[in-house]
Amino acid sequence: MAAPADEGMWLPNDPPKKLLKDKYGFDLTDAWMTNAIRASVRFSNGGSGGFVSADGLVVTNHHIGADSIQKLSTREKNLYRDGYYARTRADELKCPDLELNVLEGIVDVTTRVNAAVTPDLTPAAAAAARRTVLSQIEKESFDKTGLRSDVVTLYQGGLYHLYTYKKYTDVRLVFAPEHAAAFFGGDTDNFEYPRYDLDVCFFRVYENGVPARTEHFFRWSPVGPTEGDLEFVTGHPGTTNRLETLAKLIHRRDFTLPYTLYRLRTMEAALDRYAERGPEERRQAATDRQRVANSRKAFDGQYDGLLDPQTLERKRLEEQKLTVQLGLAGPNLPLRPQDVRILPWQHVAEIQDRFAKFERDYDLLETGHAFSSELFTIARHLVRLADELPKSSGDRLREYRDSNLDSLKRTLFSPAPIYPGLERAKLSASLSFLAENLGGNNKVVGLMLHGKSPTGRANELVGGTKLADVAERKKLYDGGKKAIDASTDPMILLAKAIEPDARALRKRYEETVEEPERQAFAEIANARFKLLGRTVAPDATFTLRLAFGVVKGYAAEGEKLPYCTTFAGAFDLAEKQGNRDPYELPARWLGAKTDLDLSTPLNFVGTADTIGGNSGSPVLNRAGELVGINFDRNRHGLVRNFVYTEEQARHIAVHSKAVLEALRTIYKTPELVRELTGK
Amino acid sequence: MAAPADEGMWLPNDPPKKLLKDKYGFDLTDAWMTNAIRASVRFSNGGSGGFVSADGLVVTNHHIGADSIQKLSTREKNLYRDGYYARTRADELKCPDLELNVLEGIVDVTTRVNAAVTPDLTPAAAAAARRTVLSQIEKESFDKTGLRSDVVTLYQGGLYHLYTYKKYTDVRLVFAPEHAAAFFGGDTDNFEYPRYDLDVCFFRVYENGVPARTEHFFRWSPVGPTEGDLEFVTGHPGTTNRLETLAKLIHRRDFTLPYTLYRLRTMEAALDRYAERGPEERRQAATDRQRVANSRKAFDGQYDGLLDPQTLERKRLEEQKLTVQLGLAGPNLPLRPQDVRILPWQHVAEIQDRFAKFERDYDLLETGHAFSSELFTIARHLVRLADELPKSSGDRLREYRDSNLDSLKRTLFSPAPIYPGLERAKLSASLSFLAENLGGNNKVVGLMLHGKSPTGRANELVGGTKLADVAERKKLYDGGKKAIDASTDPMILLAKAIEPDARALRKRYEETVEEPERQAFAEIANARFKLLGRTVAPDATFTLRLAFGVVKGYAAEGEKLPYCTTFAGAFDLAEKQGNRDPYELPARWLGAKTDLDLSTPLNFVGTADTIGGNSGSPVLNRAGELVGINFDRNRHGLVRNFVYTEEQARHIAVHSKAVLEALRTIYKTPELVRELTGK
Repeated sequence: MAAPADEGMWLPNDPPKKLLKDKYGFDLTDAWMTNAIRASVRFSNGGSGGFVSADGLVVTNHHIGADSIQKLSTREKNLYRDGYYARTRADELKCPDLELNVLEGIVDVTTRVNAAVTPDLTPAAAAAARRTVLSQIEKESFDKTGLRSDVVTLYQGGLYHLYTYKKYTDVRLVFAPEHAAAFFGGDTDNFEYPRYDLDVCFFRVYENGVPARTEHFFRWSPVGPTEGDLEFVTGHPGTTNRLETLAKLIHRRDFTLPYTLYRLRTMEAALDRYAERGPEERRQAATDRQRVANSRKAFDGQYDGLLDPQTLERKRLEEQKLTVQLGLAGPNLPLRPQDVRILPWQHVAEIQDRFAKFERDYDLLETGHAFSSELFTIARHLVRLADELPKSSGDRLREYRDSNLDSLKRTLFSPAPIYPGLERAKLSASLSFLAENLGGNNKVVGLMLHGKSPTGRANELVGGTKLADVAERKKLYDGGKKAIDASTDPMILLAKAIEPDARALRKRYEETVEEPERQAFAEIANARFKLLGRTVAPDATFTLRLAFGVVKGYAAEGEKLPYCTTFAGAFDLAEKQGNRDPYELPARWLGAKTDLDLSTPLNFVGTADTIGGNSGSPVLNRAGELVGINFDRNRHGLVRNFVYTEEQARHIAVHSKAVLEALRTIYKTPELVRELTGK
Repeated sequence: MAAPADEGMWLPNDPPKKLLKDKYGFDLTDAWMTNAIRASVRFSNGGSGGFVSADGLVVTNHHIGADSIQKLSTREKNLYRDGYYARTRADELKCPDLELNVLEGIVDVTTRVNAAVTPDLTPAAAAAARRTVLSQIEKESFDKTGLRSDVVTLYQGGLYHLYTYKKYTDVRLVFAPEHAAAFFGGDTDNFEYPRYDLDVCFFRVYENGVPARTEHFFRWSPVGPTEGDLEFVTGHPGTTNRLETLAKLIHRRDFTLPYTLYRLRTMEAALDRYAERGPEERRQAATDRQRVANSRKAFDGQYDGLLDPQTLERKRLEEQKLTVQLGLAGPNLPLRPQDVRILPWQHVAEIQDRFAKFERDYDLLETGHAFSSELFTIARHLVRLADELPKSSGDRLREYRDSNLDSLKRTLFSPAPIYPGLERAKLSASLSFLAENLGGNNKVVGLMLHGKSPTGRANELVGGTKLADVAERKKLYDGGKKAIDASTDPMILLAKAIEPDARALRKRYEETVEEPERQAFAEIANARFKLLGRTVAPDATFTLRLAFGVVKGYAAEGEKLPYCTTFAGAFDLAEKQGNRDPYELPARWLGAKTDLDLSTPLNFVGTADTIGGNSGSPVLNRAGELVGINFDRNRHGLVRNFVYTEEQARHIAVHSKAVLEALRTIYKTPELVRELTGK
């Protein structure tokens, strides 16, 4: 069961050197890899990017920078819609709460973690022991290095690695195109190809008030890739589920995904309705809408894929083969999903049955799907911090461990605007969603609605809370438990009211699902290691990975799709669609049409293995130069969460040459071009 | 428990003469009532209208005519978007499948129905006996009069009335404004006030190829109503649930409505995504989108209302009072919902528990929510007709009874276009919805998906069926059972495959829910009659009703809202919103602005009791003249399904003067104006 072809999101400390040598004759040197690691950037809000100058300049996707661009926008000055360019350093705009991480080191701590969690422990004791040892390892590392330190669980529990990161918290916006140029084709063309998106933006990291010196960065290729080129993608893929068992995928199909789709459609409807009220409401809801629509489309594709019997059949055969190789089953058995329950596969299946009984409650009340509101999120953190901070770091809920507090406080005290109307719309929809799921007679529903309808209750909460004011949050944070106990802020009262139920669900989840799953998956991982070594990369974990592939077109529905599109194609499509949203090219584009070299490649596709979180990933050539910025995958790639295929599945990237052409001809940013090219 | 104030959708053969006399000093004469009945029109697709000339001219809402206007539109000639005016009779466009009904007579057949359904029958036998006697009564009436004959169940089973209708099937489009003028403010302002919608259109009924002579019609008031005027609304309110028991409303809250909202959001998302693909897709999906959005907003309001404890508390107190008055309970009991289970209330509660066990399956497979596709609907009718037609009319599934066949065949063989892309989008979303609800391992889901993903299966079905061709439908219809058995059309095969499950669910529903509910509600109705006489109107049943009220503004959120809006307000709002969809006034409006009397009233509100189905209802003054065309109610009126209030709840209508001003000044239709006013 070696990974087929170009599959794999490889660990940076264990890259597939032999595979690359054998298949592509490429020598992956340590110097190449070190530069790739040090020049790659993680965006705390869920994306990737890369340094592209020695002065801390970072490129990423517009849709990854969007959260910050939106927070820098106002009713009067809509940078998200209209774009932005800082001609001088003084014009660069500081983002209110963006954090970038750059990987510094990796240490395998599997032995230490496993030694702390001994087989004789009950699941509850094991969960506590694991939480404590993880927190200790992170704290020791942080105390020693001053670096952000996170223990990462790989192979669903097979390995534990300590990652240390340099953290940048002074990040400033340098350049963004118009949203319409970055997301040309909108939701309709999202996860589709051909595409014509200038989905890029630039930030700069600062230290002590001046641009950071970044020794490692990617040189910008003025040529970019062409068909057949070997390509590399570095970045932070978020989540894949390829090493999960058949039982867990069936659980996803029959519990998690239907619920998720129901939830996303509910939120999308609420956001769309809010946006339709007028231009200002549209502006406020813009990034939420794009995020939710993107998730909805991705999960729709996942669900469609899991309902295709071939997807699960492939998984079943893999699992069967593995159990046969391990001597756990005869070659013709097991044949049906319910027969695959050989320990630890059986154990995973049992855990799914257990989780199904309280998964909705857990998602609604602990994950917080019932309270889709920034103000509620703030209230919950304040309530929990008051309870958690007096404990030692290892005993706290994991998100409140010492090594994470700085990052948490940055978002908690962020001066980014919170819009009451938008909050009301989201909260009322999610309170309704809560009642729809648990029923109007449910005790918790009654407690949360407090004698009101969802709309009435949302109005009361958002209208009454003072948490939109950062000073108020700081006061409650500083006042600790006493201040929280005394608070009559309605959002704080809501967060306090749900706390007993939410904590009970969290405990039940950690002790009866998370910990037993880790143990079972660790067993499976060890069995796989025994048979296959490390020839299969671990599932994605929003940590740095290296993928590789070939720049290459494909055929779909009888049509041959080329490896790249051009500027000419964008203008053609806009004209065909009447230059109407989401196919409305910005005025700057229309004005520059005659000056543009319309044959310049705009977007391109390749076989490298990517997933959500890889947005903004640098695409590199053999020389380690940046030839593209990954921003999407096509619809054939939507089942990549479960299986990798390279027949039709492709990642999609902005061509490095397109960026230069646009900056020069459309946006006229000579300073930025000079920084990228030296010219 | 007399009806408060202006509540009531009154039966046309039992109008509230005394109430009107006592409260408003109005003498409702038989002549007034006869004209109101004969001039009122029912639209078969779920709306109301009225004759407004002796030559068969009918006014209704644009959103009621929309289905036909859309079917008359093509990619090249988009009447739905751009409007239409037939300057001469020869230009009037025949609608492909529209049927209008005009009430001719009502006969009480309660005694005969009840005599056929004797208390000794099992529920199954009772259901069969009831179906047979209803069918017999209708067939006898049809054979005798040649009129469409429907037995209507009133008071949820308390009374049975035979309604006979004159039927018009040659209906032609005379005038429609642009969709943007008819639905100015779009979904955002739907169920809101103030409003500025010219939501009207005109049809003409023909007989034997010439305009029908319509002796009874409403004279068009050139003045319209003003604040404080007594108003009447005649029309066909679809469904209210005010006489349902507390247990049934709780069932709606905890089962029916959450499922309905989930379904509508799923369909709306699919339709929105389809529409975003381009202008032609937007055109194709336009009426479906408006219909689904309207339902979603209405049910959202209902659900929000039922989650407000005050709504159910009011119902509980009513029920308690009634049981006390009937001597069934002491004055302080029952206090909690679960205690209200005194027969027949208890019986209704038990039926809800029973229904909850298979309601989703019933809705998905028998109602057809799993197969949202016109092609599937056609296939199912063809499959069922082959089985049902050989039976005697009284033994058939009710929709295939002789007296309904003409109407059914008109839709079955309608030449209206069916769009394959739209069909695929809807069917794939609803097949996914099926799997989301029943799970990927479910036998029926497997049968329906047939080894494909929802998307793949929808493509296969829509791509393979020939049912878009009317000739093919006729061939299968004429070929009967033999042709259906031999057919390999994939949509026919699908409809055949689901038939055993669907029929079993239908039978289970009719025998264990519908019939027992009717019996229980009949008992409750009789108890109410004993105590209260007929002082409370029956719930709405999509049959002709008379409502009355006062033209009157109201206050909301501290703001005083006037009884009417004006043309000036429409222009102001469009300007404020940047004249952008859904606040984009058509070019004709902008061009006519200087000629318009901008102070002309455009929309007005009143307290008359309306609900969905009242769209297009004539609003009349004391003289029986048409002073408005009802088209909506405000959000405070969304709980009207369960309780009537007149504090803030209002119906919303187009002012009769606005229509004349628009026809004269914007649309320049002197012929139509002359027909309406004689001038």
